[in-house]
Amino acid sequence: MLGSHFGTLFRVSTFGESHGPALGVIVDGCPAGLEVDAEKIQYDLNRRRPGQSKLVSPRKESDEFEILSGVFEGKTTGCPIAMLIRNTDAKSKDYSAIKDLFRPGHADFTYFAKHGHRDYRGGGRSSARETAARVMAGGLAKQLLASAGVSFKSAVTQVGKVQAIKRIWEQVEENDVRCPDPDVLEAMIAEIESARKARDSVGGMVEVVADGVPVGLGEPVFAKLDAAIGAAMFSIPAVKGVEIGSGFECVSARGSELNDEMTPSGFTSNHHGGTLGGISSGAPIVVRLAIKPTSSIPQDKRSIDTSFQSQTIKTLGRHDPCVALRAPVIAEAMLAILLADFWLQQLAQTAAREHYSTVEKIQYSLKKDD
Amino acid sequence: MLGSHFGTLFRVSTFGESHGPALGVIVDGCPAGLEVDAEKIQYDLNRRRPGQSKLVSPRKESDEFEILSGVFEGKTTGCPIAMLIRNTDAKSKDYSAIKDLFRPGHADFTYFAKHGHRDYRGGGRSSARETAARVMAGGLAKQLLASAGVSFKSAVTQVGKVQAIKRIWEQVEENDVRCPDPDVLEAMIAEIESARKARDSVGGMVEVVADGVPVGLGEPVFAKLDAAIGAAMFSIPAVKGVEIGSGFECVSARGSELNDEMTPSGFTSNHHGGTLGGISSGAPIVVRLAIKPTSSIPQDKRSIDTSFQSQTIKTLGRHDPCVALRAPVIAEAMLAILLADFWLQQLAQTAAREHYSTVEKIQYSLKKDD
Amino acid sequence: MLGSHFGTLFRVSTFGESHGPALGVIVDGCPAGLEVDAEKIQYDLNRRRPGQSKLVSPRKESDEFEILSGVFEGKTTGCPIAMLIRNTDAKSKDYSAIKDLFRPGHADFTYFAKHGHRDYRGGGRSSARETAARVMAGGLAKQLLASAGVSFKSAVTQVGKVQAIKRIWEQVEENDVRCPDPDVLEAMIAEIESARKARDSVGGMVEVVADGVPVGLGEPVFAKLDAAIGAAMFSIPAVKGVEIGSGFECVSARGSELNDEMTPSGFTSNHHGGTLGGISSGAPIVVRLAIKPTSSIPQDKRSIDTSFQSQTIKTLGRHDPCVALRAPVIAEAMLAILLADFWLQQLAQTAAREHYSTVEKIQYSLKKDD
Amino acid sequence: MLGSHFGTLFRVSTFGESHGPALGVIVDGCPAGLEVDAEKIQYDLNRRRPGQSKLVSPRKESDEFEILSGVFEGKTTGCPIAMLIRNTDAKSKDYSAIKDLFRPGHADFTYFAKHGHRDYRGGGRSSARETAARVMAGGLAKQLLASAGVSFKSAVTQVGKVQAIKRIWEQVEENDVRCPDPDVLEAMIAEIESARKARDSVGGMVEVVADGVPVGLGEPVFAKLDAAIGAAMFSIPAVKGVEIGSGFECVSARGSELNDEMTPSGFTSNHHGGTLGGISSGAPIVVRLAIKPTSSIPQDKRSIDTSFQSQTIKTLGRHDPCVALRAPVIAEAMLAILLADFWLQQLAQTAAREHYSTVEKIQYSLKKDD
Repeated sequence: MLGSHFGTLFRVSTFGESHGPALGVIVDGCPAGLEVDAEKIQYDLNRRRPGQSKLVSPRKESDEFEILSGVFEGKTTGCPIAMLIRNTDAKSKDYSAIKDLFRPGHADFTYFAKHGHRDYRGGGRSSARETAARVMAGGLAKQLLASAGVSFKSAVTQVGKVQAIKRIWEQVEENDVRCPDPDVLEAMIAEIESARKARDSVGGMVEVVADGVPVGLGEPVFAKLDAAIGAAMFSIPAVKGVEIGSGFECVSARGSELNDEMTPSGFTSNHHGGTLGGISSGAPIVVRLAIKPTSSIPQDKRSIDTSFQSQTIKTLGRHDPCVALRAPVIAEAMLAILLADFWLQQLAQTAAREHYSTVEKIQYSLKKDD
Repeated sequence: MLGSHFGTLFRVSTFGESHGPALGVIVDGCPAGLEVDAEKIQYDLNRRRPGQSKLVSPRKESDEFEILSGVFEGKTTGCPIAMLIRNTDAKSKDYSAIKDLFRPGHADFTYFAKHGHRDYRGGGRSSARETAARVMAGGLAKQLLASAGVSFKSAVTQVGKVQAIKRIWEQVEENDVRCPDPDVLEAMIAEIESARKARDSVGGMVEVVADGVPVGLGEPVFAKLDAAIGAAMFSIPAVKGVEIGSGFECVSARGSELNDEMTPSGFTSNHHGGTLGGISSGAPIVVRLAIKPTSSIPQDKRSIDTSFQSQTIKTLGRHDPCVALRAPVIAEAMLAILLADFWLQQLAQTAAREHYSTVEKIQYSLKKDD
Repeated sequence: MLGSHFGTLFRVSTFGESHGPALGVIVDGCPAGLEVDAEKIQYDLNRRRPGQSKLVSPRKESDEFEILSGVFEGKTTGCPIAMLIRNTDAKSKDYSAIKDLFRPGHADFTYFAKHGHRDYRGGGRSSARETAARVMAGGLAKQLLASAGVSFKSAVTQVGKVQAIKRIWEQVEENDVRCPDPDVLEAMIAEIESARKARDSVGGMVEVVADGVPVGLGEPVFAKLDAAIGAAMFSIPAVKGVEIGSGFECVSARGSELNDEMTPSGFTSNHHGGTLGGISSGAPIVVRLAIKPTSSIPQDKRSIDTSFQSQTIKTLGRHDPCVALRAPVIAEAMLAILLADFWLQQLAQTAAREHYSTVEKIQYSLKKDD
Repeated sequence: MLGSHFGTLFRVSTFGESHGPALGVIVDGCPAGLEVDAEKIQYDLNRRRPGQSKLVSPRKESDEFEILSGVFEGKTTGCPIAMLIRNTDAKSKDYSAIKDLFRPGHADFTYFAKHGHRDYRGGGRSSARETAARVMAGGLAKQLLASAGVSFKSAVTQVGKVQAIKRIWEQVEENDVRCPDPDVLEAMIAEIESARKARDSVGGMVEVVADGVPVGLGEPVFAKLDAAIGAAMFSIPAVKGVEIGSGFECVSARGSELNDEMTPSGFTSNHHGGTLGGISSGAPIVVRLAIKPTSSIPQDKRSIDTSFQSQTIKTLGRHDPCVALRAPVIAEAMLAILLADFWLQQLAQTAAREHYSTVEKIQYSLKKDD
């Protein structure tokens, strides 16, 4: 695994710091001839950016992006697609006060210890701002995968102790929390407001689902779909846990409860969350992320400075009380990026087999029983 | 991510099927001059193999390994180290009955759909038997990391609904469950026996800890330590969830509860589980895995065959009632492999900096308050 | 580029030393369902091994190989294919005399300086014996590519100052030199015998050609077909120069002489050697390798020992007077490995495009004018 | 090998087309704390750009670059360094006439056949303009390697049939040809002018040398220094041949002539060109590139169009009569990039060994006899 690179055939390389001149991404390996809908990418960027509602950080980042290469006359050329966002609302002075301090829960200390020299402004490279680059790449991956019938949806399924039970996906983008369950929406908002008023922050759960994923994606052993999902999701800032399908519920369950039976018309359940043996089964891929509360809170905390002296620190600035609210589109982006990669890998395999194999083609897609 | 390959500088490539002639691993990139203690690797193989106790599968696999290259006069040469285990107790006839059937919860269907041709005997490549290859590579990684002061420990911290509270690490290898809490050992055994008697299986939780990890390992953004942990752990068969530090508890917590404060003598707590911003903080790395119950259970289940016709299937054979019991050493192996890789990567960075940087070296290790 | 690994989708990992227990290779990424003809692989191994004729080293290595994984019922499973050769005729005592000496022209000094610890027997990992592993992988790659209509041929086109003018390919394997030009065969043999009698060795040129390569293989910019050819060929021991098509003749030529014109029935010439802009053009891929004379010669040479003291060294042992004679099949293997890789990569691209592109399929193959 | 990516620890990813909005590069893996001298990078860009003299293309590209990330307060942060050049003098109308035609000797046909959709303006991604991105990355690599004592020099050592015998390096940048031999400078200029007047172009040879390379760089087997050099140099547009040290002269030589003997004070000659067994020997690394004449010449040539109909084409535009003149700095850049990568890899190995090996450190550098 290499620094700011992700993927084998659909390769994403990102760069940029929170308060530097720009951030961006190169997508290499996207096949040629794909019509690129820049508005859809912008739509996803808007879903990620701060300032969307009163529940998130009031920072103003327009996040308008420019395509610098790889697209000609509206279509991909098969060459690297570079996309760039210029930083505009970088209030670097907010950070000068903490340039020699390590904010608890942040990467300040570890980046300093690792590199000996760091861009301390807004977390520099460790800022979640870098996820804008992923959202652009993910937007492209989604457009590629749409041609294969794959679609994505995501939501905030828990905030603090308030848990969504229902999954009414079409309502998700219509509320500020991205809650899929109208019955608990108000409770979730209350949880966030309560944390903010307490000068605190609160954790959340994000669920992301890919529908229509072809059977057979994923490469055993270390490149199982699960492994790529693990890598992709744990690479998102603030994620401390990831589960697929029944996830941690498996621990206390019996095998007989979880064995998703198969019939000619599909699986009778989806405890496996769309992967068996690391390979997509055709059932929806269901992933959940545990997202820790924003580490930046305006409370006095003990810390140290770059000289390893004790200090008291209170992190001010324009922070999200519940950073999980902006994470769903990032999770979609990462899932799309890895699925695009595995889709291309599997296409290579099946296309090669057509040259020598006489095995009759059978319909491998299994659908869930109605 | 590439099929059966893992790692950048410490590179592991595995091969082999459950019932094929042999399975093995190449470790490429291990530095030269390291004394290899083959007995320690064999000890780890013994911790993984079936037949160790009455709680696990009674299959007899001696798992004796041979070093084929890369070690000369007892020391590594810097060249690829190949290690091989010949398969001996392969009762392939056990599987002929299900050669055209897909066992629920297994990779039978997905491998068939993906590849069109599969070694159905014992799950072939999808069998957990391939993890023996990882254990060999992990054994080597541990010996390399020992020189940097890193050590590993692991345990089964939950079986079904029985949860370990204490962590008495030195007792772990002395009981058949690898339970770190003597107070719940009997309850765990009872849970397993109960599942077995019910012709069922039960899930489990594994916790793995790396102590003494130097500060600064991990490469942002996509190669965060967390991302590599996610990839490594989700690549282990039957793992459906992974968490680091406080993990899923973060969802319902407030930021003020989780912000691990820092003092000159170290972090005051370790909710972050040893990584901040994807980089090791010097605190112990703590990872937990949710392991699903063995899918192979001797109960009638609905399934289909390779012609997509309905079938009833009952998976016989010599299976573990709680496969989690054999997973701790595998989790250690994967954690060691990825840490060896990141350690080498970070050594390259710091060694390069010595050529041009005059930054005074400071002591970056932080220890937990006593 | 990673140590003993080559390739992205068709991935080759080798291991083994000249006098260790075994050497072998894992091929990961070969699609499933391919019938494997082990005899063809053995045939290629026989073309490489010493002892074939009086012109090459009289060492006796049977080079019989075993498939350890990835092939079931005669067909590939899509899982890693491991192939192993046990070393048998390892006369390690031949080398004890030079264990502290560096043989001029060999890797003895550089391996020692790099690793600090080395297997000095027969050059250890730096021995050309490791190419047997590549020949196995190449044999598999050829079988895969045969399904796409690609075939390979190679010859020794120069020995010392004796140059082959004609290319009568079907005679190549019928003479001990692998000379494609019967008019110069005797002169080549004389050149080799003359070198041997003078206790010396002589250089050679190898030409390798791939016919039937589909248009469109190769990935710009750094993964141009040319770049992969450069990497692959320069990775072969003793190769000091590589050229494609007109190669070094381009230096003294005019553009008007080299511009291969195109007609609807194909290129009118092939100065470009089958690649334009790094992408295969459909014309035969033509590559030539400059292979230095065997460094091991029984003449007194000045050298140093591991204590950096002056020594006189005379390299005895069973060496080839013209190591180029055994190189053609290795060059074929490397060319096949890289073309298999790029073929799979291109299949992924074109298969993906079929999902969204309505561009009519045209016949892209261009044939040379008759 | 992956499209527009090069390197393992010092990773270069490029993007951009000849007539697109911009081209650029991300360098990931450059260690932190390195002072970046932007003027030195600009100096190298100026050495590559057209319009420098009357001997090269009169196109006006200012090639001013901007650093977008990874550098803070003048020093690298260890995070990806993105560098961007906006395109300015793109006369796209020059190319509309040939949008459906394939220029002989160019990538027009192969890109079209590969991708089905291409940016035909100025060759798009296949234009040598992309090498500007490499020169930026190479400029950075040189600054990193300077701290290890490595330096680079390069020259045009042959133009058409005119060959430089002397190597007076300090004069190279003072003449328009970059000729290292004042005795043949005028003849070289005459050769170029003669080709231009004949509406033709002429080939050239470039020699690039790295001095001060530490012993031990390069990773056997497939990542030999030679293999990386082969990949790097053959990835440069118009390169059709590469040789190291004595290169193609080895073919007609005897082993006794080429065996570079060793004494305590160094090698007595450097036929090996700085690598033995793929590992750097401490002697200067000497590489030569055969560069074909510019394919774009204003003469009528037979070609075909995208409908595969016969056409006559005459390539107009502002082209170099001898493209080799601008190649030396590109060769330096690629050599620097790969050496930076291998240097970091070797630092990881030696730094690791310090943790467990008690082998006394010896002086491995060998110098050429005076």
